[in-house]
Parts: sequence; structure tokens; C-alpha cells
Amino acid sequence: MTDILPTYADMLAAHERIKPYIHRTPVLTSSFLNEKTGAELFFKCENFQKAGAFKVRGASNAVFGLSDEQAARGVATHSSGNHALSLSYAAGRRGIPCHVVMPRTAPQAKKDAVRGYGGIITECEPSTSSREATFAKVQEETGAEFVHPYNDTRVIAGQGTCSKELMEQMEAEYGHGLDAVVAPIGGGGMISGTCLTLSTLAPDVKIYAAEPEQADDAMRSFKAGHIIADDAPDTVADGLKVPLKENTWAFVSQHVTDILTASEQEIIDAMKLTWARMKIVMEPSCAVPLAVILKNPEVFRGKRVGVVVTGGNVDLDKLPWTL
Amino acid sequence: MTDILPTYADMLAAHERIKPYIHRTPVLTSSFLNEKTGAELFFKCENFQKAGAFKVRGASNAVFGLSDEQAARGVATHSSGNHALSLSYAAGRRGIPCHVVMPRTAPQAKKDAVRGYGGIITECEPSTSSREATFAKVQEETGAEFVHPYNDTRVIAGQGTCSKELMEQMEAEYGHGLDAVVAPIGGGGMISGTCLTLSTLAPDVKIYAAEPEQADDAMRSFKAGHIIADDAPDTVADGLKVPLKENTWAFVSQHVTDILTASEQEIIDAMKLTWARMKIVMEPSCAVPLAVILKNPEVFRGKRVGVVVTGGNVDLDKLPWTL
Repeated sequence: MTDILPTYADMLAAHERIKPYIHRTPVLTSSFLNEKTGAELFFKCENFQKAGAFKVRGASNAVFGLSDEQAARGVATHSSGNHALSLSYAAGRRGIPCHVVMPRTAPQAKKDAVRGYGGIITECEPSTSSREATFAKVQEETGAEFVHPYNDTRVIAGQGTCSKELMEQMEAEYGHGLDAVVAPIGGGGMISGTCLTLSTLAPDVKIYAAEPEQADDAMRSFKAGHIIADDAPDTVADGLKVPLKENTWAFVSQHVTDILTASEQEIIDAMKLTWARMKIVMEPSCAVPLAVILKNPEVFRGKRVGVVVTGGNVDLDKLPWTL
Repeated sequence: MTDILPTYADMLAAHERIKPYIHRTPVLTSSFLNEKTGAELFFKCENFQKAGAFKVRGASNAVFGLSDEQAARGVATHSSGNHALSLSYAAGRRGIPCHVVMPRTAPQAKKDAVRGYGGIITECEPSTSSREATFAKVQEETGAEFVHPYNDTRVIAGQGTCSKELMEQMEAEYGHGLDAVVAPIGGGGMISGTCLTLSTLAPDVKIYAAEPEQADDAMRSFKAGHIIADDAPDTVADGLKVPLKENTWAFVSQHVTDILTASEQEIIDAMKLTWARMKIVMEPSCAVPLAVILKNPEVFRGKRVGVVVTGGNVDLDKLPWTL
């Protein structure tokens, strides 16, 4: 990890580095949703990405950028979400170990998913102190390289490749660019990558971040002009509970046009609408952009809007509209 | 309707005719499912098709092939499934009426969906005699053209465009062809279109039909050498309950390599597995091909197999694994 910000050249290098290990995910449209929103929406479907989420871009860039000597000691993280799956997948492709520290109380399904991608789990107690102590021990014993889920130059450069593909696909498949891009914001990795890429490649494209009302620390940070981190926010969009950190804050504070929020019910409704009309399985977190577009028609009407569908890892036995 | 079989030239003409009204749906792959089956699977995703299913191909070919005089009187059908949605969609694009005869006991959601695409519903009692009488009355009053869901030359020619696209996409995107194609079989419209196209375009490709064990009339017809029609079979794959008819039987009996079946639980497991790993919303009917591939690994191992995902219209409040 480093606090030097990644450059556009880092993003270009990342794309070359990770191309063999990721999908160039499709860009889908829906006439129904276009009519409903009055905008032209272009969905970049990272739910179809390897390991089920965009996070494999940043994780692969980190893993395949390591020297052979570093790589031999493996990588490590303490995320238990899509980053853990993605880092395990990327490490597996390079043939190196990936250590994941997870609370012993984490759902069995999450542990199984990490192991399914080849990750090595070390369990800790469900407290920050135990997690940090256990993680320090794992790092000391293995010498594994820590890859933070989002506050990491290599990770942000990797996430930036998503917008590069989106802009290329817009030109090639639709013959025009975009007026705006909307992506969900949690820790800010995807939004930072989007800012990194578009501020050079397409600086006129407005960048909107979409956030759950019940975890609106990024919106409040944006308004206050400094990072506000909440303790344990609760939202159905469980990928968006984490706070901004210094690297992502640098991008968000400089390049984002606005941060818009949606309620839990608006998120669930947008999620179900996308499943029903676009026939794609996506996580609650990915529904937040459509929810804010539906909620703020005056911002998006008549515009060409890219929407980043960040992932599709969801528990099919516990869909939020059936609970 | 006619009982003259469509030709390859009819299919080519159909594709030109319907191109402005349909999606060229993507072909997706899954390394997980490839590893699990030992085959290379290529999923032609008609769940992303206009109106949510491949049936819009045949319906559009029928609607846009009508003379202006015929078209002015509209079209009519007594299906209440994807064909009704597709015919309503196509009629709407041409700006002509589409009459749909449905039992008054049909689920409100189905009626709403048909009306959502602009279809005009005439209700009948839930019996074959009432349906036939009501349909005859609608036809007499309107002069609307009957478009059968599958036993119709124009419809079969339209469905054949799906395999044409699939073969084109295989060459363009993957650089090779296929050893086999698997598609679900109900009335046999999709399978007949597949036979029509591949028997000329790629005659070495084997064609397998996939059918629920609990509605295995096509498999029994295939073995007996003549059509066997069951009365009201019951299966979760509700799109596959209808019997073969003379036009589809002609294709099935001549060109299909085999008809393979799967149990209800195998269908539900394959459906859930696809949602979980491919992140696509598809109907139970579409899971039957994957179910038979998983069940008959010796038939498909080491082969390149096209899988037609026929549609994505499913009740998200009643998923079969949550019942």
C-alpha cells in the first residue's frame, strides 16, 4: 500500500497487465428503463466479471504487479466480501497463496466462497482488535503483501480500467460517448478509478456517486470537505458500508460532481426492477445508481448515462424483497 | 398458419425482416460451468431478448411479413405465455392491434404483462371449449390473423434466426464453431428453427432437445416415431408443457440427435446454479438444457456446446428454490 496517487499511465499499464485474467464485460441497455427514466442508460455489467465483481480488476493488478520474490510470499487481506474473492482468484491464477483473515462468525457461505477461489482463511474473533492482531500475525509469519480493498494505488488503477472499457465500448458499439457516469460509493475504489480514467480520457463526463441514505458518510464528507467515517452503518447494500480513506478521498473530493442518496426501499425496488426487466442478477449495492437516477429525473433526463453494475454476488436464498 | 415447412431462404429473409425489432443477444461463457461439466459451453442469452424471450423472433417475423391489408386487421393468439408478450410487442412496433384470448383465472401478473406490451385481452372460461369458442368469435369480429405460438411456418423461420446469430457470433468472437447445440423442447418451435438453420448452415452440429421428465411427451414421441400428446403435464418448466404439432414434428423427427430429460429437482438445481454463477435471470424452462448436460457428462465432455437460454420471464416473488 502507498499513499502516492495512481496516474493515468498506471491505469493503462494495469489494463495491459490484467487483460488475460478479466472479462471485457458487456454493456447492456433496456428500453423499458430508458422510457421510465427519460435518460439513455448504458449498464456496464461487472456482475458478469470474473469472481462476480469489478474488484477482480484491482486485485489482479496488485497480484500481477508483484515481483517474483514478493509474489512467492503471497498476498493477504482482511476483507470478507468481493475483494477477498477477487484477491483469491487473482492469486490462484498466479499460483501464489492468498491469506484472508475473517471473523469466525462470518456466514459459512462467505467462507465457502473464499475457499472455492483458493483463499486460505485464518479466523479471528469478531472484533477490530482481534482482526488487527490476527492479521499482523499472519503477515509476520508469511511475509504476505497486504492488498487493501480500495485505499491502494494498484487497486485504484485497476478499477479505473472499467471506465476505459466502457468508453471504448460506447464508441465501438453505440457510436457516441456519455454525458455522465453513475457508480456506487462505499470506500470509493470504483469511483476513484472512474475519476482517474475519465478526468484524462473524457473530462466532460460528469461523475455521480450513489450511496445508501443509511450509510451516507461519503455524501456528508463531500459536503463537509473532509472524511467523515461512521461506525457500523446498516444497509441492505452491504458492499457500501466502509468509509472513504485518504487515497479515495483525494479523487472523490476533486472530480466527483455530486453524491446522491437513496432509501433502503428505493434500493430494493430498483434492484427488483433490474432483475425483472434486464434479467440480470446483481447485488443490492449495484441498485443504488438506478435508485438515485429514478429519484432525480431532473439531473439525468435527456442525458446519456453510464451505470456501473459493480457485482452479482448475492444470497439467492435471502432476496431482500422476500424477507 | 400453413403446413408447408419453412426453408433456409425463409429463415434468411426472416432475419433481415426482424433485425430492427430484436436484440442480437450476447453469447456468454462460464469457466465454473465449463469445469463442472468438462465441456465448453456457450450460452446464447435470449433472456435478454426484447419482451424477455426468443419468441419475439417468430412473432416479429409473422407480424412484419403481413401485407398492409392483413396487418390492419391485427393479429391474434390464445397463448398466455411468452408468445403473447412477444406478439403484443411486435404488433405494437407495427402499430396494429394484438388480440390475446386468456382464461379469466390467469394470474393478474400475466394479464398485466400482456397489457404492458399493448395486447388486448379477451377473457374466456378456463376450459378448452370456451377458449376455442371465444377465440373464434374474436377472429370473426376482427378478421385478425392467427399466429400460433410454434406450429407456424413464419414462427419457425423466425426462431431459426437465433442459431444463425449464434454460429456467426461463435466465429467472430471465439474463432471456431460448435459440436452440438442444446435447446429446451416444448411445442418444438425453437428446436425446429434450430434444425432448419443448422441442417443447412452447419450440418455436422448435433442437435439435442432437453425436456422435463414430467412432461416428456417429445422424448416418447421421438422414440415411438409419431406424436404423443399428453394431457396437462405438470412441471416447474411451465413453458414446456405443450405438445409437438405436425410442423415441428417434421423437424424434430428428421434432424434431432436425441432428446434428453431431467427431473424437477435437477432443473431447479441447474437454474439456481446458473443464477448464482452466471448472474443471469432465466426461466425454469431454460435450465433444462444445463440440467441434461450435467446429467449426461459422457455425451458432452470435451465438446463445444451451444446452449440456448430461451427466456427470462419469471416471477421473482415465487422462485422455485424458495417454495
